[in-house]
Amino acid sequence: MGRRSGGREAKIALRRAALADDLRPVRAGISGGQYRPLKDDDIESINDTVFKILEQVGFADATEHCIEVCTAIGAIVEDGRIKFPRAVVEDAMEKCCRNLVLHGQDPKHDLHLSGSRVHFSTGGAAVMIADPINNEYRDSTAQDLYDMARITDKCDNIHMFQRTCVIRDIADSHTMDINTAYNAVMGTSKHVGTSCSEDHHLEDTLRMLHIIAGGEDKWRERPFVSISCCHVVPPMKFTEEALGCIRVAVEGGMPILLLSAGQSGATAPPCLAGAVAQAWAECLGGLVYVNAIKAGAPAILGTWPFVSDLRTGAMSGGSPEQAILSSACAQMGNYYNLPTGTACGMSDSKMPDFQGGAERAYTTACAATSGANLIYESAGMYASLLSACPESLLIDNDVLGSALRITRGMEVNQETLGFEVLKDVCLGNKGHYLGAGQTLEVMQTEYIYPDFGDRLSPNEWTEQGKPVLLEKAVARKNEILSNYFPTHISDEVDRQIRDQFSIHLPRSAFGRSE
Amino acid sequence: MGRRSGGREAKIALRRAALADDLRPVRAGISGGQYRPLKDDDIESINDTVFKILEQVGFADATEHCIEVCTAIGAIVEDGRIKFPRAVVEDAMEKCCRNLVLHGQDPKHDLHLSGSRVHFSTGGAAVMIADPINNEYRDSTAQDLYDMARITDKCDNIHMFQRTCVIRDIADSHTMDINTAYNAVMGTSKHVGTSCSEDHHLEDTLRMLHIIAGGEDKWRERPFVSISCCHVVPPMKFTEEALGCIRVAVEGGMPILLLSAGQSGATAPPCLAGAVAQAWAECLGGLVYVNAIKAGAPAILGTWPFVSDLRTGAMSGGSPEQAILSSACAQMGNYYNLPTGTACGMSDSKMPDFQGGAERAYTTACAATSGANLIYESAGMYASLLSACPESLLIDNDVLGSALRITRGMEVNQETLGFEVLKDVCLGNKGHYLGAGQTLEVMQTEYIYPDFGDRLSPNEWTEQGKPVLLEKAVARKNEILSNYFPTHISDEVDRQIRDQFSIHLPRSAFGRSE
Repeated sequence: MGRRSGGREAKIALRRAALADDLRPVRAGISGGQYRPLKDDDIESINDTVFKILEQVGFADATEHCIEVCTAIGAIVEDGRIKFPRAVVEDAMEKCCRNLVLHGQDPKHDLHLSGSRVHFSTGGAAVMIADPINNEYRDSTAQDLYDMARITDKCDNIHMFQRTCVIRDIADSHTMDINTAYNAVMGTSKHVGTSCSEDHHLEDTLRMLHIIAGGEDKWRERPFVSISCCHVVPPMKFTEEALGCIRVAVEGGMPILLLSAGQSGATAPPCLAGAVAQAWAECLGGLVYVNAIKAGAPAILGTWPFVSDLRTGAMSGGSPEQAILSSACAQMGNYYNLPTGTACGMSDSKMPDFQGGAERAYTTACAATSGANLIYESAGMYASLLSACPESLLIDNDVLGSALRITRGMEVNQETLGFEVLKDVCLGNKGHYLGAGQTLEVMQTEYIYPDFGDRLSPNEWTEQGKPVLLEKAVARKNEILSNYFPTHISDEVDRQIRDQFSIHLPRSAFGRSE
Repeated sequence: MGRRSGGREAKIALRRAALADDLRPVRAGISGGQYRPLKDDDIESINDTVFKILEQVGFADATEHCIEVCTAIGAIVEDGRIKFPRAVVEDAMEKCCRNLVLHGQDPKHDLHLSGSRVHFSTGGAAVMIADPINNEYRDSTAQDLYDMARITDKCDNIHMFQRTCVIRDIADSHTMDINTAYNAVMGTSKHVGTSCSEDHHLEDTLRMLHIIAGGEDKWRERPFVSISCCHVVPPMKFTEEALGCIRVAVEGGMPILLLSAGQSGATAPPCLAGAVAQAWAECLGGLVYVNAIKAGAPAILGTWPFVSDLRTGAMSGGSPEQAILSSACAQMGNYYNLPTGTACGMSDSKMPDFQGGAERAYTTACAATSGANLIYESAGMYASLLSACPESLLIDNDVLGSALRITRGMEVNQETLGFEVLKDVCLGNKGHYLGAGQTLEVMQTEYIYPDFGDRLSPNEWTEQGKPVLLEKAVARKNEILSNYFPTHISDEVDRQIRDQFSIHLPRSAFGRSE
């Protein structure tokens, strides 16, 4: 391409000017639904099966409280299982919370889960950190969790921070749960997803969140942390601890991710269609319980069926079947018009290599265009969720930006079709569109530009010493971790928390004086 | 996951048994169309604009022959441009070749371009080879082209080999064109796409292909090479040389790729919608000419609008906008029910790294699910088409397999929904599906397994010395190039060709005695 006369500096200046949020080509909550892996008939068949499972198979291991509140609204206990007649489930679906808002500590990060609006979140329970600098795996720590929260806070296309890794340098599970929530909310003002192994851990977590919110009433107005509850151990078995947490969360005004994480061929049916049906049945069972406790309590239907590599039984989060499963679950969620979360973006690779990029990209592009309201695990996860990679969050942010851009699609109208512009260029013998006013106008609204992605020519690449993507991400990570210590939680509040709870990391780790 | 009793050896044995082609989870010609970036109204608006462009703007620089045959059927010459009234275009669309077959030298590789059936091809005119072993770029050679053809012959998910690189060690353009076709057809028995800079080069290429086919009549029965013709220099200007090649190809029974390769904001409109409209207008203009020469002559509508990074004017083949553009073009093609080719899978990265994987993956997943009949440039291309990487073809084959698997989607029926299986597992307290007959049955039909993708656990990965994806691909490439010399063209035919044409590489380069 030849030199263009003028315009270049104007373009650079325009590029630098920040766009209003509603003009930016990508943002949280872009609507998906262009990708529909299921035909209308398929949806009906899956729906019928879902209700059959709930009615005829039901769940093992319901707690006393679950049995009490659910039988009160029509559930049936039979052969040690709690079963949900269709009317009971439909009633819960009728009463439940739609158009759910996940609040950020900063309101600019509020996420509106409705329709086919798409958002990306981290997520996971990695026990290891993938360290691409040394090509090594090591145990994950409290510091890692805080660090990943801070990095996520800087990533425009990761809209929420759900706990990514298990804090393995804290042995006591109560202390671990408290510090998980603490490190996450200290690191980002985006909505946080946390996890608790027992109900009383969650009660204490809530007490801490009340302090941060400035009182329980303030917390209830804008609950900025949700809890991930694996309320089932698939297939179709409730878990006592998670049901306990659900009860505490509902009563405490905390949004719940009702999480069904079966694995096809192992804990979920081997055919993809069956895995979708089971996941939806399991999540709707959770929804009945939530709404039996309190109608309209906020809950996300977390249909996360995973894929097994049936040769070995190992999970394959980066498989194409994962993309199909998650997208089909999202499509069912759009059909039900319920706030739906799923998991996509995981890689089976151990490091952010070609495979890591490919698996993250096709799974997230599919899940986003399918209209999943919240796509968890979408950044940083390797070894099929066993590890998290902090550096990867930064390059994943580019991939998620692309997925969102694809999801936005193209606006088609007389202006964008630009017949008059074309006519002027062709009939005026201008030969190209470089000088057309429209070209300058749309360069920021129609296109996105990666933060790390390399678009250099081979010559520029050589001249610049062949920059390596991952090295650029490492440098940026170091810069963030050295300099970025969010202060949305005041020192005073922090000291109050530290007086009442056992916080593992010293204040200095959060960039604060002791 | 715990140990499973038995079954493991049976699974391994089953996995090793080859599946019949119609049972394999992915294959050439799987139907897409699940991803629809354009709404029905959008399609109508684009369609209207396409006809307006053809009718009111038309093409500059038509050749005498083009003017002669096109005005004979109703085209109008005005102000030095040839314009196509709607009826003329619709007539060509009516008469043209649908359900086009691209023949392989081996019939098992025949590609049926119809409906929304999806196929992947290489393609490009790279002038450099990306060498990931030495992290270097070098000029592309005749040997590289033969090597990439051979590698492609071994890649199940790359269904056609279109010329990937320019043979830079041959200075004379006639010799280059002959050797391009020769090296490609020697390297693979899949359908080949070639390129010629002048009509008489194509005449000679055809003569060579007649020899290979065993006579002109045999060639015409199963033309196994198509020609890529950039019949326009966008916007809306015909090119004399390519129109010359079109004429020779139509008369010689060779399928033509009518290629419109504008670049948004430069040679195509800056808005995506406008770029799609211009690309379709340009390809339909070519289609009118083809059918004016001979109604029903095989042609692929090659809508390849590319993306410019408007900050620099450089092409960005790996951008998300590329995925949208190509998918929208494919959707228009499905609407017109015309055989449609587009370009996706290119990366802006210089090497097969994380970015390379990501860009290849989201662009190909979108293009495939949109139902593009032929997705060119889908493997091996880096630096936005300036380079080709032979090793990458092998790992790209995994990515394309995933895109095809996603495109196949899920079958939903009573068997795959598996209610009875679920009931048996849950009510029978079996706890998992590992022992279910269905699990073993579907492990090869419902799932695909990557050739190179790493699914090891972190422990296995460490024990195996942390295998590197790219190193595995390099080893496999070396194995193929050392041992695999296709012999579908006999020595006798080869000697006949060498008697009549100037073949650059010695017979020994093709694994044959001198």
